[in-house]
Amino acid sequence: MLIAVLFHMGIIAESMSGALAAGRHKMDLFGVFFISFATALGGGSIRDVLFNHYPLLWVQSPHYILIVLVSSLIATRIAYFINRLERLFLTFDAIGLAVFSTIGAKIVIGMGYDLTLAMIGAMITGSFGGILRDLFCNSMPLIFRKELYAFVAMLCGAIYWFSYPFLGEELATLCAIGIGFIVRMIAIRYKISLPTFIFETKEKS
Amino acid sequence: MLIAVLFHMGIIAESMSGALAAGRHKMDLFGVFFISFATALGGGSIRDVLFNHYPLLWVQSPHYILIVLVSSLIATRIAYFINRLERLFLTFDAIGLAVFSTIGAKIVIGMGYDLTLAMIGAMITGSFGGILRDLFCNSMPLIFRKELYAFVAMLCGAIYWFSYPFLGEELATLCAIGIGFIVRMIAIRYKISLPTFIFETKEKS
Amino acid sequence: MLIAVLFHMGIIAESMSGALAAGRHKMDLFGVFFISFATALGGGSIRDVLFNHYPLLWVQSPHYILIVLVSSLIATRIAYFINRLERLFLTFDAIGLAVFSTIGAKIVIGMGYDLTLAMIGAMITGSFGGILRDLFCNSMPLIFRKELYAFVAMLCGAIYWFSYPFLGEELATLCAIGIGFIVRMIAIRYKISLPTFIFETKEKS
Repeated sequence: MLIAVLFHMGIIAESMSGALAAGRHKMDLFGVFFISFATALGGGSIRDVLFNHYPLLWVQSPHYILIVLVSSLIATRIAYFINRLERLFLTFDAIGLAVFSTIGAKIVIGMGYDLTLAMIGAMITGSFGGILRDLFCNSMPLIFRKELYAFVAMLCGAIYWFSYPFLGEELATLCAIGIGFIVRMIAIRYKISLPTFIFETKEKS
Repeated sequence: MLIAVLFHMGIIAESMSGALAAGRHKMDLFGVFFISFATALGGGSIRDVLFNHYPLLWVQSPHYILIVLVSSLIATRIAYFINRLERLFLTFDAIGLAVFSTIGAKIVIGMGYDLTLAMIGAMITGSFGGILRDLFCNSMPLIFRKELYAFVAMLCGAIYWFSYPFLGEELATLCAIGIGFIVRMIAIRYKISLPTFIFETKEKS
Repeated sequence: MLIAVLFHMGIIAESMSGALAAGRHKMDLFGVFFISFATALGGGSIRDVLFNHYPLLWVQSPHYILIVLVSSLIATRIAYFINRLERLFLTFDAIGLAVFSTIGAKIVIGMGYDLTLAMIGAMITGSFGGILRDLFCNSMPLIFRKELYAFVAMLCGAIYWFSYPFLGEELATLCAIGIGFIVRMIAIRYKISLPTFIFETKEKS
């Protein structure tokens, strides 16, 4: 199944991105595993907790924990290599973003919720992993300043919502993933981002 | 209904406070929305997750998401204006604190729990939004050093708990909100705060 | 009951460790209480939220909240004293780690889950309190660099898992606690830690 393959590629890419972040902060192997886990599986977990959708993915299918563990250990071995292959890595990451977001929207819609919540569900699933990664590394989440990351997540949710009554679940999923992926790659290529809100003031409160 | 009006004023004030914090950290529009969302709706969400009280408010009534979105966008337009109207803004914020905390206590009591948990529920509802805001902005939560913020939240919970058997739900709610609001305004006006615990040591652990 | 006594010693030690961390960051009394609460009861709460195991311990038995409150207030009085008794304090902390982790594994196994999840449950219970403490104090979590902390938690989970079919719940619990405690004390004594993954690069992403 194509979607399952893409989903696993996404998990692996997110785990490795977590491992590299942990390495940048000089963590031990536990830290590496923990950050990878939070990056790869945290977004879906927070979505499931907020929407009361139990059991969580990795509780139901613990083999995902092993995938994260192995991916993160491999990442510590081939870190410099990954860094050189940055374009490939960003491609995997974009696949992960599109797949996670679309699946997130699908789950929320499957629980009977509406467009607004489908987009929020997609956004949480697609972007909270990266937020947790940066939070646990004690950095300002990159995503709050990054090229259309969360926007792409919400876009996937909206596309899925509008297309599945016409195209059916299968095709709508692939369609949302495909468009999300392309938009993300274009945003990276041309450094497109949302306008920034800068508010300078003498810190008072 | 007075309480509903006050509640919406609180949501709007908290959203705007989130948006300003995001602007101070130079975030993009997604970051602005995300921080506003966490500030305005995060406290209630964490209470509901901890007390297993589903569905969450914004899942049940997604129009709150739109209120947050609109408020945060408006805040980016009128930021300097808000900053000049600081007193008005703090008043709204104090209303939000008192309303959120009292409603938090009410929900926890409605689930059959006791005074201690009513106070904890009020505290989580009233103060966790601000904690999340500061956490996602990668700052030390202000609330841990601020004028009686969480104390007011717990006070609202306690007042509601003691008064609703005598005054009825309606009146007890207004009473808790009113007293909480006044105490908070006095604390701001006279810069009253809890004693601080300062523990200096050569960092070892 | 020995296990209950050890569990309370753990709660007290974790509360005090939270209070000291709050004091190092010059927080007010609310901050002290909040950080103590998160340190002592946060790990178990997050485990229960992730595994859908409600009600949370402190919701069911609010007297734990009072224990945390009292311990944290006492800690602010005797901070320098605790600091001088560092070895005693680390011993209590190691007891807490071993007891929390083992109980975490027990709960997860009791819900019908397998070895992998028992270890993850033990790890979350034993180590997330410290992670939250550092997060709310806006520091990089110490645990990601510390002597075998989370490793000991997972070890307790694994020992319990392997031994309870043979030894029975009671004895397996004590056995896991005992070995975990000893390994932790040895790791502190000889400064044993996991290998660290250091990945230096010119910050790009």
